[in-house]
Parts: sequence; structure tokens; C-alpha cells
Amino acid sequence: MGKTLSEKIFSEKSGKDVKAGDFVLAEIDVAMIHDITGPLAIKAFREIAGEKAKVWDPKKIVIAFDHQAPADSVAAAENHKMLRKFAKEQGILLYDVGEGIAHQIMVEKGHVLPGMLAVGADSHTCMYGALGAFATGIGSTDMGAVFALGKLWFKVPETIKFEINGKLPRRVYSKDVILKIIGTVGANGANYKACEFVGSTIEKMEMSERLTMTNMAIEMGGKTGIIPPDKVTEDYLKSIGVDYEIPEWLYSDEDAYWKEVSLDVSNLEPQVACPHSVDNVKPVSEVEGVKIDQVFIGSCTNGRYEDLKVAAEILKGEKVAKGVRLIVIPASRSHYKRALKEGLIDIFVEAGAIVEFPSCGPCMGGSFGLIASKEVSLSTSNRNFIGRQGSPEGEIYLCSPATAAASAIYGEITDPRKV
Amino acid sequence: MGKTLSEKIFSEKSGKDVKAGDFVLAEIDVAMIHDITGPLAIKAFREIAGEKAKVWDPKKIVIAFDHQAPADSVAAAENHKMLRKFAKEQGILLYDVGEGIAHQIMVEKGHVLPGMLAVGADSHTCMYGALGAFATGIGSTDMGAVFALGKLWFKVPETIKFEINGKLPRRVYSKDVILKIIGTVGANGANYKACEFVGSTIEKMEMSERLTMTNMAIEMGGKTGIIPPDKVTEDYLKSIGVDYEIPEWLYSDEDAYWKEVSLDVSNLEPQVACPHSVDNVKPVSEVEGVKIDQVFIGSCTNGRYEDLKVAAEILKGEKVAKGVRLIVIPASRSHYKRALKEGLIDIFVEAGAIVEFPSCGPCMGGSFGLIASKEVSLSTSNRNFIGRQGSPEGEIYLCSPATAAASAIYGEITDPRKV
Repeated sequence: MGKTLSEKIFSEKSGKDVKAGDFVLAEIDVAMIHDITGPLAIKAFREIAGEKAKVWDPKKIVIAFDHQAPADSVAAAENHKMLRKFAKEQGILLYDVGEGIAHQIMVEKGHVLPGMLAVGADSHTCMYGALGAFATGIGSTDMGAVFALGKLWFKVPETIKFEINGKLPRRVYSKDVILKIIGTVGANGANYKACEFVGSTIEKMEMSERLTMTNMAIEMGGKTGIIPPDKVTEDYLKSIGVDYEIPEWLYSDEDAYWKEVSLDVSNLEPQVACPHSVDNVKPVSEVEGVKIDQVFIGSCTNGRYEDLKVAAEILKGEKVAKGVRLIVIPASRSHYKRALKEGLIDIFVEAGAIVEFPSCGPCMGGSFGLIASKEVSLSTSNRNFIGRQGSPEGEIYLCSPATAAASAIYGEITDPRKV
Repeated sequence: MGKTLSEKIFSEKSGKDVKAGDFVLAEIDVAMIHDITGPLAIKAFREIAGEKAKVWDPKKIVIAFDHQAPADSVAAAENHKMLRKFAKEQGILLYDVGEGIAHQIMVEKGHVLPGMLAVGADSHTCMYGALGAFATGIGSTDMGAVFALGKLWFKVPETIKFEINGKLPRRVYSKDVILKIIGTVGANGANYKACEFVGSTIEKMEMSERLTMTNMAIEMGGKTGIIPPDKVTEDYLKSIGVDYEIPEWLYSDEDAYWKEVSLDVSNLEPQVACPHSVDNVKPVSEVEGVKIDQVFIGSCTNGRYEDLKVAAEILKGEKVAKGVRLIVIPASRSHYKRALKEGLIDIFVEAGAIVEFPSCGPCMGGSFGLIASKEVSLSTSNRNFIGRQGSPEGEIYLCSPATAAASAIYGEITDPRKV
């Protein structure tokens, strides 16, 4: 019996021939903390290794400020200050306020490569799997151990093969595919499994779309989302200045999967995750007409240039509906710059949108763009739990940038294929 | 003995021939509330006039969201929601999140005209006096009474004539002039006085610069700042689509002033207000080299297109110093759009700045962009009190957009005449 891509990575990183179910001590290639989880990780690190200890390898740690950026309280400002000091003392690379969402930075700045074992103190770390790495979110205490040792215990996960075929219809995107999958398997349908996405649909997806897929693997309980690296991966790495030849062993043997889920997307409708769980997914036709108060286009899931371009094409020459707030936030400075250069920011501003600088924004409901009771948010982000974007009496729907843009124009959930 | 401009306005609005020191019940032409003071004003209004009462004249009230925009807490979101409902029920014009700072909107949307009596539930309402109106900040309870009756009691103030002459040197602006004046007369030097700005320097100032002057009258205790309307005023009104002929009576008789303060600005240095009071003003040469952590270019004082242009000219092709955060926030959507169209946003982003959408931003230390303990902020806003921008252990210096931009490049307070 062969091995999955994830098993191969864990074998490589533990120096042993391991299989799903094995417990392994694996070497970490790169570790990320952000402004919320970072202080906790450092506290844990100091408890484990001592107040004056040095991290195992400062070149393998990245810090980014995204959740409370710019600082939205004195406590946040103090956290930022402490993290800056820690980064300086330890020689760790820090992306300060405005540089972008941590996950996006990890990918676009070349911190993650195919075959790596990447951990981040944030659940959506699984996104980096789009590059063919095994990437997973860990708790801040675990991260403290990683900072001390550069290693962490894992149970090697089984892999679910998501075989996705068919040409995506007009105005249907990877976000609709991943929502459909989560709706099908359920929020716990892939608990502690590696979710590997393959098939002709995935092969044709650009990196931005792939990142949306793997980003949301956690929303069905997945330990990671992962896509076998290919020419698209190599081209993407080249585009960000990384010349990297993909090792030949980075694929799964066909007989090694634990389970297979197939999906033909040829006739897929745009999908919407309804309150209050990500797996409460319905085709847009079933929720059309739901009145909305706020639309958020952004987040690590769907805040890249490519996402903004889709939204801008729909919003060009249109106006956001009266009574609706449209908040647009590019995922990183480089994506903001490209959107600015290519006139997308103009289109958003002309349409009446509010364009904020790269950060997590309303996604996690702790910084700005919060909703009130009885308000309805339509969001391109990844979670719609009760209270996630503000009042626990508010409601959150999740969708693609196209559905978000079309809905912003009409003030209600709208099928983007109609505009 | 003649009358001051302010006395003439109060005579007109009270229907009586009044002088400084008289108590008058005067008719309000326009009243502004924002997202922080609005809910309190409405509560007072309902206590005075009843739960179901209608305001005296919805066309004379303006609501704008600027202090917590986008909503930075569930409480802020609920306030916004309540204010939207109130505006809709009463037929009041509301500028929602992202439209701009209330004071800027009041001016640029033509809500204030020369000779008007304008009140706002915010201390920097005095800014509108640059149009030749008598404009002053009032408490939320007073605003409740205004909503009910359209009238308010005032003690007619004496007027200090600030006679300012001379050509401003290169890289010295109205902000430097008003800081110099506040430093000279002191934070209580104009308590309850109308501060009338006249002289050749003022006559040559464009509206944007005049607004900076009147905005800060409150920082020396002034009841208002006011500038006799002239051709510049008329041209400005025309530029915003208001065709208005200035009434002949809108000037002060020479013998009517209470006091006169003269200033020759021909050799004025750029000025900096040092911690922790606005009247602790020093020439830039005395504070050069002070290390800074954050620079804020924005606010109702200095966030207009003209201010951004000055900053952009200095920042063009330069980079913000490592370790310094530069936050730029245009004062309104229209000023953002102009800055975007003319490439200023590009310049800021290329320099490494964080550009947020129109709001009060870090100015009042309650929303975002807060500083930590021991951090130093250099800001184009109007107040540097302890804790105003975050930690009470932080320090705030105030300056012009030129000084702010130059300092951002060097990471320390820098004389803009040197760059």
C-alpha cells in the first residue's frame, strides 16, 4: 500500500517511514504567529524555555499584525509593542500593521514551499496547503513548544480525496465549490483528516482560487487542506520570485486514501452558507431576496487581487444599494497596490464602498466593521458562527466575491449570474 | 460703538439688537450630531419633548458617522443602527460610515453658509466659522433642546481680533500659524471669546487653510473661530455648487473688538505642540530629533486634499522610516476621491503608509491607530492631551502635514524646510 502526500511529508519531517495513525515528532519548517495569538505563544515559550531563551531558529518564524491592525485598543497597541520587541531581540521577521493578513503574507512572501511542514497559531493556517505543504493551525501553547524545540508531536492524519471535476460555470468560483463540499460532508465531516483536493477543476484553478479551497478545509474539521503541487504551483512561486523545482515525491499514491468524495461542478450554482454554521449551505436561488445591511469583501479566504477583480467587474458603473454598507479590504499590501494600479479601488470608491487597508477587518468581529442586532452581513470570509462579526443577534451569510458584489448592488442576496 | 461680526449674527438670529455679554435666545440654522454624541442628544430630546416627538425642523439637522466608523464594537454598531432609525423616522439627512468626518461634511456639502448660527455636538464645530458663520460646539443635552425648539440660549461673546500679516515662508502653513497663536495666548487665553482671524495672511489663505485656523479656536478656549466672508468664501461655495451672494453686513466694525492680538508670520518657523497640552508650542528647531513611533496625517484639522497634497509632495519617491507607522486618512469621501484620482494615494502606499477610509481615526483614541505606553505620536490633529490617542503613558506632538510627512521619512521630528 502506498502513501498519501501528507504521509510522505510526515515521513520526511520525522525521519521515519510513517503512516496515518502514527504519532510522530516532526521538524517544523516554518511557524507563524499573529497579533492575537503571538503574545500567548511567547508566554508559553518563556514558561517552557525560560525568560531569556532564544527561539530554536528565528529564520523559521514569522510574525504578522492583522487581527487588530491598526491597534484598536491600548491592549492591542501594547501587544504590538511587545511583539516588535520580541522580534527585534530574537531576529524574527515581522510584518507590521498594514502589510496584510498573516496567511496571505506567508504564501505571497515565499515563506511556505511545497513539501514543507508549516504551523501557525491560527486555525486557517491550513490555507498554505494550496502550495503542497502540510500546514495546520496549532494552539499558542503548542507554538511555545515549537519556538523552543522546532519540533512538535502530530498524529499523522488519514486523507480524504476530494475529486472535483467539470468546468465551473460563469460566475461560479472555488468559494462556491468549497462551500458545496462543506455543505455536503458537514462541519465535522473531515475531522482530523487531511483534505486533499484533486481533479480537473482543481488543476485548472489558479493559486488564488486554490488558496480559497484549502483555507476552508478547517470548516469541515480538516487537519489541513492540501493540493498536490504542479505547474500552477511552480508558476505561482516564480511569480513571487521563488525559483523552486517541485520534488518528484510530492503526490499521493492512489491506494493510500482513506476515503474519496467526488463532485462534478459543471452545473454548480453559486452557493451561500446560511446562519449560523458554515455547513448550512444552500444554492443562491434558495436564499435570493434576503435583505442585507453589510457586505464584506476581503479576508484570507477571498481578499486577493483576483477576488477584488471579480467584484470590481460586477460593481463597475454600479452603486451600492441605499442602506447597505460595502466594506472592501485587500488581503495584503501587494494586492492592495495591484488593485490600486489597475483601477479597482477607483471602481469600489465610485460605487460607494468603504475601502480599508489590509487587515482581517470584520471577519473576526473584534476590530471594526461589526454588525448590530438584527443586522444581516453577507461576507466572503470563512465563518458565520453566532456573534462572529459583532452582535450575537446578527446573522452572517457567506458567499463568493461575485455573489457579494451583486448583492451589494441590490441590497439583498442576489444571484451573480443575473448581473 | 459698532458691532462685531458675531454680535451682528446674534442680533439677526435673536431678532434683537444685542451686544457682547447679553443673554439671547437665538434661532439655530443648522445642528450636527455624530455617532458618539448623537445617541445622548436624542435621549435628551426625548426626555424634553417626549418619546414620539418630532424634531423642530429635520432639514436643519445633519447626522454623520465618523468617530467609530466602521463600527468598532457592538455598542457602536447599535448606536449606528439607532441613529439610522431616528434619521429615517424624522426625515433627517444622515451621512453613513465612510462619507467622512462630520465637520468636513458640514462644510463641503453646503450645510453651513456665511451669517448662519450653527451648532454641533462636538467641540470642533467652531471650524465652520471659516465660512463666516457663528459656529460652536454644544453639549448633547443642549442639543436635545435644540432638536425640540430650534433655539438655544447663548451669552453673546466678546471678540478677540487676531490680526495676522505677512507672507508665509516656504513649508509653513496655517497649522503653524494657529499653533503659534495658541502657544502665545495659552489654552485659556480666549475663554468664551469669538476668535476672529483677519489680516493679509488670512485673506490670502484658501478655504482649506482657513478651516484649520478656525478648527483650533477651541484649543485656546474660544467659543468660536470666525473669518469674515470674502471672495475666497464665495469662490469656495461656488466650487461646492452653492451659488451664494455674501450679505454686506457680515463684517466687524473696527471699534467693536474686545482685544486685539497681532502676529507677523513672515519669519515664522514650523511649529510643534508638545506633550501634553496644545499650548505647549515650540518652533520645530527646538524639538528636532525626537524619535517617533507613529505619524497620523488626517482629522478635521488637516485631512483635506490640500493637506494630503502637501504631505504627498514631500513623501513622493521616499520611504517611511523603518519602525515608524504612517497612517493617512482623508477627511471625507470627496477628498479621498480627489486624492485617489490625482495619484496621492499611490504616493502614500508606495512610501509605505497605511491609508484608511475617511473617519476620525486615531485623533480621538477610541477607534483605531492607538499608541502604546512610551510610544510617541506625531499628529496633524488638534489635541495632545494625556491618553488622547491611546495609552496615558504615550506622548503626542501636533504639527502640520508637511512636518508630519518629513518626520515620517526620518523617523524623528524633522524640519520640513530641510527636505
